[in-house]
Amino acid sequence: MDKKNKNQEFSLAFFLKTKREIINKALESILLQYDNKRELIMAMKYSLMANGKRLRPVLCIASAECINDPKNNFIDNTIFIACAIEMIHTYSLIHDDLPAMDDDDLRRGKPTLHKKFSEATAILAGDALLTHAFFILSNPRAFSLKSLPDDILLQIIRIISDAAGTNGMVEGQMLDMQAETMLNATTESDNLQYLKKMHALKTGKLIRASVEVGALAGRADKEQLNSLVLYAEKIGLAFQVVDDILDIEGDSLVMGKAVGSDVINKKLTFPEIIGLEESKKYADKLILEAFDAIESFGEKALPLRKIANYIIERKQ
Amino acid sequence: MDKKNKNQEFSLAFFLKTKREIINKALESILLQYDNKRELIMAMKYSLMANGKRLRPVLCIASAECINDPKNNFIDNTIFIACAIEMIHTYSLIHDDLPAMDDDDLRRGKPTLHKKFSEATAILAGDALLTHAFFILSNPRAFSLKSLPDDILLQIIRIISDAAGTNGMVEGQMLDMQAETMLNATTESDNLQYLKKMHALKTGKLIRASVEVGALAGRADKEQLNSLVLYAEKIGLAFQVVDDILDIEGDSLVMGKAVGSDVINKKLTFPEIIGLEESKKYADKLILEAFDAIESFGEKALPLRKIANYIIERKQ
Repeated sequence: MDKKNKNQEFSLAFFLKTKREIINKALESILLQYDNKRELIMAMKYSLMANGKRLRPVLCIASAECINDPKNNFIDNTIFIACAIEMIHTYSLIHDDLPAMDDDDLRRGKPTLHKKFSEATAILAGDALLTHAFFILSNPRAFSLKSLPDDILLQIIRIISDAAGTNGMVEGQMLDMQAETMLNATTESDNLQYLKKMHALKTGKLIRASVEVGALAGRADKEQLNSLVLYAEKIGLAFQVVDDILDIEGDSLVMGKAVGSDVINKKLTFPEIIGLEESKKYADKLILEAFDAIESFGEKALPLRKIANYIIERKQ
Repeated sequence: MDKKNKNQEFSLAFFLKTKREIINKALESILLQYDNKRELIMAMKYSLMANGKRLRPVLCIASAECINDPKNNFIDNTIFIACAIEMIHTYSLIHDDLPAMDDDDLRRGKPTLHKKFSEATAILAGDALLTHAFFILSNPRAFSLKSLPDDILLQIIRIISDAAGTNGMVEGQMLDMQAETMLNATTESDNLQYLKKMHALKTGKLIRASVEVGALAGRADKEQLNSLVLYAEKIGLAFQVVDDILDIEGDSLVMGKAVGSDVINKKLTFPEIIGLEESKKYADKLILEAFDAIESFGEKALPLRKIANYIIERKQ
């Protein structure tokens, strides 16, 4: 590779940094509309502006930009949709961390919201973030979504509320809470099936929705939409397999949470059921399938391919 | 009044019974779309199908019907909007009852959801009900909202998410949690101002939204909308004043919760600040103002007037 080509090489680090800055700025602009002395707003900000990976909003924007040239500014349409998804993701972390659920003390390297504020405030801040996501998505004039037709916006609300609710994330967390009684209670194949279903609902569907609504905001046709959704399903599952691996192999300082906690709590995980090496092979296979799904997009899908790589190579 | 006129008299009991039956049937049809052996669905059903007054959905439908003749079947457009509002109201009760919040054991005469199931399930069932409300509102084909234009549906989602969230119900509950430190800490006038703001946010805004989105579904013009919103603000506050009075004077068997609990918990209430008799006078005044607001609708507003009366005369 000559020097010129090398300079033109795509840098995922730069791409992520740029997108995260845009997302963080937009999230801050949302919070700035409220009195920051209100405890509710402080609590929402504490969790929302913690040092998150912003995987879902980045995927949403990258998916929109995959459809056409970034110069067409799909990002203008997509940024607040991406923010709404990050707010829903953050609410789910806040509620999952509660004493009645996973009872976690650390999140993203900081005390969890109920530790920093109070349990009541954490429940309410989660409720507020979830509700506010739908306020943003239904408010095109205030949040720069004006060039999206109303029917697309309604479709986006439908996809996100489906992914986050009764048939998605909330049910996934229910299955997670019930998983402790599943482990060792049935066969390996039953456990694996349960685990896959749990993750598909708990994390998979919102990751899938992030890519899907990004594609819709980018005005993807049906075929493009299907390809991107398949990609999202593969990386969503890979993400969770890698999460389970990192819980065993990760560094607690990098992870920002106690490593091995899943093992101590006897949680259902991929390494627990199929072993550590098989889990790694499985994650690799899923990423290759994700590459296949978006092959037809060529160079435009480079960010999505690099994100898939990042998911498997990440250390936290 | 001759016998003929007497027979034609409007019966609020019959009106409420008819509307509640329609609402309950629609809510059941929503739940029937899911496997009723799932713990999440059972928990949602337990709270949603408890013996609720259905005040908000009834107001929503009555408001839509106030715009024009009931024969025009505004109810077809409005029923699932009304259901979405009831789901949000139910979620708020579930979360408010949690040990970290009001720590209540009884609701609508039955054990609270976290007592009957578990705290984790109660948090998640609340989350699911809230999320599902937005799934319904963004899904016109599945929930008979098809004759409403997309921009009106988006406006309805915006009004409801605003009323339920950061600048509405959730903030109201935050203020309620913080109210214990307010009582006796400041002057009577400060306390009263705080109390009114708390109720306007905690219950007032969703009651107002119920009437407002009903009017929008009924295709009200701007003037009609303003009149109905004013009516809703008055009865919303009256409802809360009466609630505080009932907490002192009510019968625990009829109320379905421990009477006097607000006094025991040293909560900020209207009788606590302005006295019991003044509270009753204040509620009467608010209802008269509500009547004034909808005077121009004539006979069509009869159900709304009777509901306002019911709010002040109710025993639970």
